[in-house]
Amino acid sequence: MGNGPRPFTEEQIAELERELRHVGLMVRQKGRQILANYPITPPQFEALQWLKENGDMTIGELSAKMHLAFSTTTDLVDRMEAGGLVERVRDQSDRRVVRIHLQEKGRAVIRDVINSRRTYLASKLSHFSPEQVEDLLSALKLLNREMKIDRE
Amino acid sequence: MGNGPRPFTEEQIAELERELRHVGLMVRQKGRQILANYPITPPQFEALQWLKENGDMTIGELSAKMHLAFSTTTDLVDRMEAGGLVERVRDQSDRRVVRIHLQEKGRAVIRDVINSRRTYLASKLSHFSPEQVEDLLSALKLLNREMKIDRE
Repeated sequence: MGNGPRPFTEEQIAELERELRHVGLMVRQKGRQILANYPITPPQFEALQWLKENGDMTIGELSAKMHLAFSTTTDLVDRMEAGGLVERVRDQSDRRVVRIHLQEKGRAVIRDVINSRRTYLASKLSHFSPEQVEDLLSALKLLNREMKIDRE
Repeated sequence: MGNGPRPFTEEQIAELERELRHVGLMVRQKGRQILANYPITPPQFEALQWLKENGDMTIGELSAKMHLAFSTTTDLVDRMEAGGLVERVRDQSDRRVVRIHLQEKGRAVIRDVINSRRTYLASKLSHFSPEQVEDLLSALKLLNREMKIDRE
């Protein structure tokens, strides 16, 4: 954090935390409704997203991203592999290294869920003005940029 | 949705879904880091939040809110009761009805996690202008209002 005056009040931080928590709660709740049509749990869906974003990952790398125990992640991957969503692939140059690879069926689940979320969001934005949509988008982009800094 | 022109493009909806998903991913990831200090899992924390927001709830009501199977929610509540976070309370007028009541220890966990999240958010907002903070807040409030409509 810089040394200048903060561009926000304590009250705004409290409100922002609450609003973000509520949006997250609603989106997760909606996400579970959508996922109920698939043989997949919310943590499995999160793992698919990390694999889509980062490409093939070892179980250790995935555990670290998700902040889950190695054994929990192994269980998660076992069940997704049994469901045909991912597969374990050996590294060509170092056969001791095994990575998790997203299969077409896993990509299809992500696509379907994302499309359902877009439809849901679109239905919630009908009372926004174009300026409000633009403001929300640019504020969220800025927030994500700041959050990405301690991500790697 | 109304019949007027939509105040957004398909491209903006796609971006908004992605930005919200990423913010959610970061906040959940951070949340797990914070929760790692407590004997509690992310779904347990979500259950505590619903109880704090709605007051005492039956397992059936909590299952419906969380879109989890009745048996999954029962397991969740059993573990939270064993940890002293919640307790089962019989309805005074109808002894067949059992509700889940949030205990002081459960409230303390919510308070600690929320305080950690506020500190995290404050550290991420130092590059925002006061106007950007205000825009983000009002856009999120509007989104939550719209999302609450199909919540009950």
